[in-house]
Amino acid sequence: MPIVDFWFEFASTYSYVAAMRIEREAAARGVGIRWRPFLLGPIFVAQGWNSSPFNLYPAKGKYMWRDMARLCRDLDLPLKKPPEFPQNSLIAARLALIGAMEGWLVPFAKAVFATEFGEGRDISRPDSLAPILTSLGLDPHSLLTRARTDEGVKSRLRASTEEAQSVGIFGAPSFVTEDNELFWGNDRLEMALDWASGAGTRPI
Amino acid sequence: MPIVDFWFEFASTYSYVAAMRIEREAAARGVGIRWRPFLLGPIFVAQGWNSSPFNLYPAKGKYMWRDMARLCRDLDLPLKKPPEFPQNSLIAARLALIGAMEGWLVPFAKAVFATEFGEGRDISRPDSLAPILTSLGLDPHSLLTRARTDEGVKSRLRASTEEAQSVGIFGAPSFVTEDNELFWGNDRLEMALDWASGAGTRPI
Repeated sequence: MPIVDFWFEFASTYSYVAAMRIEREAAARGVGIRWRPFLLGPIFVAQGWNSSPFNLYPAKGKYMWRDMARLCRDLDLPLKKPPEFPQNSLIAARLALIGAMEGWLVPFAKAVFATEFGEGRDISRPDSLAPILTSLGLDPHSLLTRARTDEGVKSRLRASTEEAQSVGIFGAPSFVTEDNELFWGNDRLEMALDWASGAGTRPI
Repeated sequence: MPIVDFWFEFASTYSYVAAMRIEREAAARGVGIRWRPFLLGPIFVAQGWNSSPFNLYPAKGKYMWRDMARLCRDLDLPLKKPPEFPQNSLIAARLALIGAMEGWLVPFAKAVFATEFGEGRDISRPDSLAPILTSLGLDPHSLLTRARTDEGVKSRLRASTEEAQSVGIFGAPSFVTEDNELFWGNDRLEMALDWASGAGTRPI
């Protein structure tokens, strides 16, 4: 089964949309997905940005929220702006990497996105993340402590973010096939999966 | 028949792709298209950019050319980088506005895009634009002179660019429906046309 890396950032609105539909689109094409959390912040800083381009460029930001409203309506997904945008996603991303090692990454990631953009809650707060961990049968206290302090987890997230940058990623979501073809944006999900499955592939 | 404004910039790669497919997608939905040339330069300057974001952010630029190669392959469109990117599109845009008044805008615009991105020629040069005008049965010398000097044409282009900015446009191509719904990017063409034709429209 071909595998596509799904690079996502919890603070990214379009990553939310992609996360909520990638499983069924991938299954329909017989493609496996490896969920890859990373941080966009360091990549944005390297581009000279100190915030999301949706904040730096107000016309673009206003458009994004309207576009999200249309996309979520069409997909029957709830949409509610979190109190701050972009959200601080550091602890959620570290938890996701622990989840990758322990086998609960995917349900955790989807629940974080639903909490953040479906319910409009602040995912930087432990009291937003703890109920998600509890609902997965996990121990919130020890996991949140580990996410804040474990050097191995911290360096794993740094390494993931550096890997994202090294494969040419500059935004989220992004999709990378096993032959290193990069696709950027929720709009490119189908194209990435088709590429991976060999459907309609012709030389460029 | 519902009408969609198709805002395009001759220097924009994704405007090329949209221009080459918009007529058949619109016809399939019974939607009319009003072609609206404008300049992105002043809008980019207002955002603090002195060049295309594809030049300012190299990872994004590298990705864009690869993405264009994939899109053009799928649409059987030729793709050849012009000698400089972005091209200076001022004279081509002014000519297009003359064409809007005189009824030859659409074939002119498509020919300019084909010359620029299909053949990789420099559209700031009169010897790239003149053969296009000649092929449309027009007089290149008088039209190029008019594009360089006619104050009415110059102010019409400035007004179009200001109108684009006032309706929230920040990139090209963009599509605007009669009820002022804005869609950005070649990827949103189908969604804009469906919106205009009332297909699948539900309240947001």
